[in-house]
Amino acid sequence: MNGAESLVQTLTEQGVDICFANPGTSEMHFLRALENPRMKSVLCLFEGVCTGAADGYYRMKGTPASTLLHLGPGLANGLANIHNAKRASSGMVNIVGEHSAAHLKYDPPLTSDIEGLARPLSHWVRRVESPDAVAWDVAAAVSKASEHSGQIATLILPGDTSWQETSARIDVPQAVAYAKTPDAARVEHIARVLRSGEPTLIVLAGRSTRGRALELAGRLKSATLCRLATQFFTARIERGAGRVTLERIPYAVDAAIDYLKGFRHIITVETTEPIAFFSYPGKPSLLKSPGTTVHALAEVGEDGTAGLEMLVDALGAQHAPVLHQTRADATAPVGALNPASIAQALASALPENCILVDESLTTGRETMGLTVGAAPHDLINNMGGSIGYGTPVATGAALACPDRRVFCMIGDGSAMYTIQSLWTQARENLNVTTIIFANNSYAILKAEYANMGAGAPGERALAMIDIDRPRIDWLAMAKSMGVPGVAVNSADAFHQAMTHSVHESGPCLIEVRL
Amino acid sequence: MNGAESLVQTLTEQGVDICFANPGTSEMHFLRALENPRMKSVLCLFEGVCTGAADGYYRMKGTPASTLLHLGPGLANGLANIHNAKRASSGMVNIVGEHSAAHLKYDPPLTSDIEGLARPLSHWVRRVESPDAVAWDVAAAVSKASEHSGQIATLILPGDTSWQETSARIDVPQAVAYAKTPDAARVEHIARVLRSGEPTLIVLAGRSTRGRALELAGRLKSATLCRLATQFFTARIERGAGRVTLERIPYAVDAAIDYLKGFRHIITVETTEPIAFFSYPGKPSLLKSPGTTVHALAEVGEDGTAGLEMLVDALGAQHAPVLHQTRADATAPVGALNPASIAQALASALPENCILVDESLTTGRETMGLTVGAAPHDLINNMGGSIGYGTPVATGAALACPDRRVFCMIGDGSAMYTIQSLWTQARENLNVTTIIFANNSYAILKAEYANMGAGAPGERALAMIDIDRPRIDWLAMAKSMGVPGVAVNSADAFHQAMTHSVHESGPCLIEVRL
Repeated sequence: MNGAESLVQTLTEQGVDICFANPGTSEMHFLRALENPRMKSVLCLFEGVCTGAADGYYRMKGTPASTLLHLGPGLANGLANIHNAKRASSGMVNIVGEHSAAHLKYDPPLTSDIEGLARPLSHWVRRVESPDAVAWDVAAAVSKASEHSGQIATLILPGDTSWQETSARIDVPQAVAYAKTPDAARVEHIARVLRSGEPTLIVLAGRSTRGRALELAGRLKSATLCRLATQFFTARIERGAGRVTLERIPYAVDAAIDYLKGFRHIITVETTEPIAFFSYPGKPSLLKSPGTTVHALAEVGEDGTAGLEMLVDALGAQHAPVLHQTRADATAPVGALNPASIAQALASALPENCILVDESLTTGRETMGLTVGAAPHDLINNMGGSIGYGTPVATGAALACPDRRVFCMIGDGSAMYTIQSLWTQARENLNVTTIIFANNSYAILKAEYANMGAGAPGERALAMIDIDRPRIDWLAMAKSMGVPGVAVNSADAFHQAMTHSVHESGPCLIEVRL
Repeated sequence: MNGAESLVQTLTEQGVDICFANPGTSEMHFLRALENPRMKSVLCLFEGVCTGAADGYYRMKGTPASTLLHLGPGLANGLANIHNAKRASSGMVNIVGEHSAAHLKYDPPLTSDIEGLARPLSHWVRRVESPDAVAWDVAAAVSKASEHSGQIATLILPGDTSWQETSARIDVPQAVAYAKTPDAARVEHIARVLRSGEPTLIVLAGRSTRGRALELAGRLKSATLCRLATQFFTARIERGAGRVTLERIPYAVDAAIDYLKGFRHIITVETTEPIAFFSYPGKPSLLKSPGTTVHALAEVGEDGTAGLEMLVDALGAQHAPVLHQTRADATAPVGALNPASIAQALASALPENCILVDESLTTGRETMGLTVGAAPHDLINNMGGSIGYGTPVATGAALACPDRRVFCMIGDGSAMYTIQSLWTQARENLNVTTIIFANNSYAILKAEYANMGAGAPGERALAMIDIDRPRIDWLAMAKSMGVPGVAVNSADAFHQAMTHSVHESGPCLIEVRL
């Protein structure tokens, strides 16, 4: 067995059985090792798709995927979506091919400081020193990536460690993931806060926006009259009819301050206190009122669900009733496309148990709040703010959950970043409906230009914001990569296209012409 | 005047008058400052296009362009083509937007270690500390980028340094670019080598593959019977009829060793001795024979042309005759597409003074040598080996030389990396003919798989190499971004499409179906 075969075998033995790959010459032995039938390899035509797909896979599966990247530049192409994954606490094992040590000293063209490129966005970086070290190093990488919360592990694999034979079979320990339980005294303190009856907001994030954590939060709400919210962006949230609904702290600074000002206490679960996404002249970064106190029930990396359980117990709220979201009117909309009719189309057409990946910056902000009464679904947001996360994350989510349809709502500007995802969706026949909100503009920036105090954009500034010359032909774009597409310019047509996509297998694209 | 206005004004005063931009919220004041009519802003839909275009611009203009990138992830998306530019010794000024210092401490979502991401691939990194520092910092960045050889300068611009007012007009020194002259004693030594009559190869690179340097090299060849070559990849070379022709050291290790084995001496000019691109089991990294001695006439960063001039003087070869390339048969080819007929079509159709950007890994290797008798043209290669350099570099080259047509020869796999370039080409109506060699495969990897000793790829490995499911529809891809396209499957049709593209203004795409 050579180093590459040891690597793939160890990955699968540690539970990592999918690899999003874009290989090059230095990874040929890895490619050969991918003949191992326990490993599913998924080819992506750009590395940003690999890393984003690994993020999407983790969000739905809860265990890390691997990526195969070609030296420093291949890693560099994947970094933006590694950033987004890191901010979403998604675990990931990146394998980065590298020149053999004997070759590296001549500084061949593809040489770069791979550790230097990896460190700013990885929690763990290691260079394999020999074929025999591969198994240990891979096990350590998977163990790191599997921590709660998930971590970015990057393993650098020189060519010779890949092609040379291992000298012995090395048994490595199985990766075990566990989360720290919150401190009991802290829970007791927070129970006193909730008993005080003072206006309190619980902000949920991480793994506490799903399943049992949501139910526990619902008990706290009915027992103490606190309110429940998420940050504007959440890595993954279970929402819709039959679930405990969480409010959403607004994105805009003024609106968020206004929303938060009534609360005397903010209790955070697997997140920090609300802060502004960007800084604006004359506006604060911290969004809470000066008189508000923040209490961390669970830090990031701690087990928020356990914290909520302890809190419910401390308050004797084990049997408090839970209010669940009712199903909204599911009538199909007619007429013009606007935030309300788009939301109505979504609420009506989204099938039970679907996955919604949202990167529709402008359209989505006005729409998403109106879909809370849709059939139960998972909603995924961009946690890192680097656009181009949506189509790859949808790709990975679809591979993690082949029986569930994925809807990727994305603005045209964002979609262009990693549009190569469509090809992988076609190749793997993934059940992804990509919804392009085509306003032919980085529309969000027009608002941000004013928010920044830069006034109204002039002609030259507008030329850097509008992407309407030429207009992107989304149907041609979809066709180019083997994805069927349809364009709609009314709410009824949008609804019809959504419904149609649910009943066909494989990917499709809907261009919503705004 | 605020910091952003100071920045744009200083850039233009220092001779940097083009900015390849993909802005975000933190760069809104920069956008406003781009209203300055002396600065041309070019919007790119992905940052890899920005940095690749800046590379192409430098290669043809010899002075740096600027890029505008959105925080760490925006920089990360541009890094692969920064790597390629760095390896091509292309100067570039990257402006990276950043959160205000007061906001940064809260670790908002888009926060990352920008210096950490920038350093591995930049020669110079600085963070602007105040609006008054902007002018000095920008001048320093331009000065660094303008060095011979060109350098990568990355300036980090926090939002508040952008929007706050400057307190005074600051005069900064004008950037001056100069190159070190090679050491006279070294030249004398190399003159003795050439006088010895022992078999000698001069390997030219950097700025010594064009203009006067080529003529000087031609004199050395006829006076001493040395031979003249380039590495397999060269940043920019003037070639074709009427020019001094340089041989090309082969890419494949065995062929390169065979080519070099007859030389007792290798003289390098603005490059290093030939090394293998990748390491392969059982094959050497250094390509010269053990008995060959290497002499550096000019190191990278030294003035190779001055070195050649000194060498010609030392040898008294000022009046040696120079042999120029003759024009090859320009008959249009007919029949099937193969390396010879593709080369014949190129040699026949390439117009005088055109620019050829080559990233056709598989097809190009067999073809390019046959185009040396075409009309005089500039040839540009990928120096860093990170694929996806071609279409952005062609974009930047076309902006640097609006009166010359650019041909971008690129494999289908490579083209998919930064295909967003087509949109910018359409928007700016650039005279770029993109030639896609569509073999529906990372074909180069099939050869590399065998070269690596991995044997013949199995089914699963082939699935990571072939990109034929689905086949990319290149005409639809071109159409999606407003570029007219045509597909050809014969040499005559290819020739006709090439000729046609010369007579139309604006971009087009030719899919060569192999």
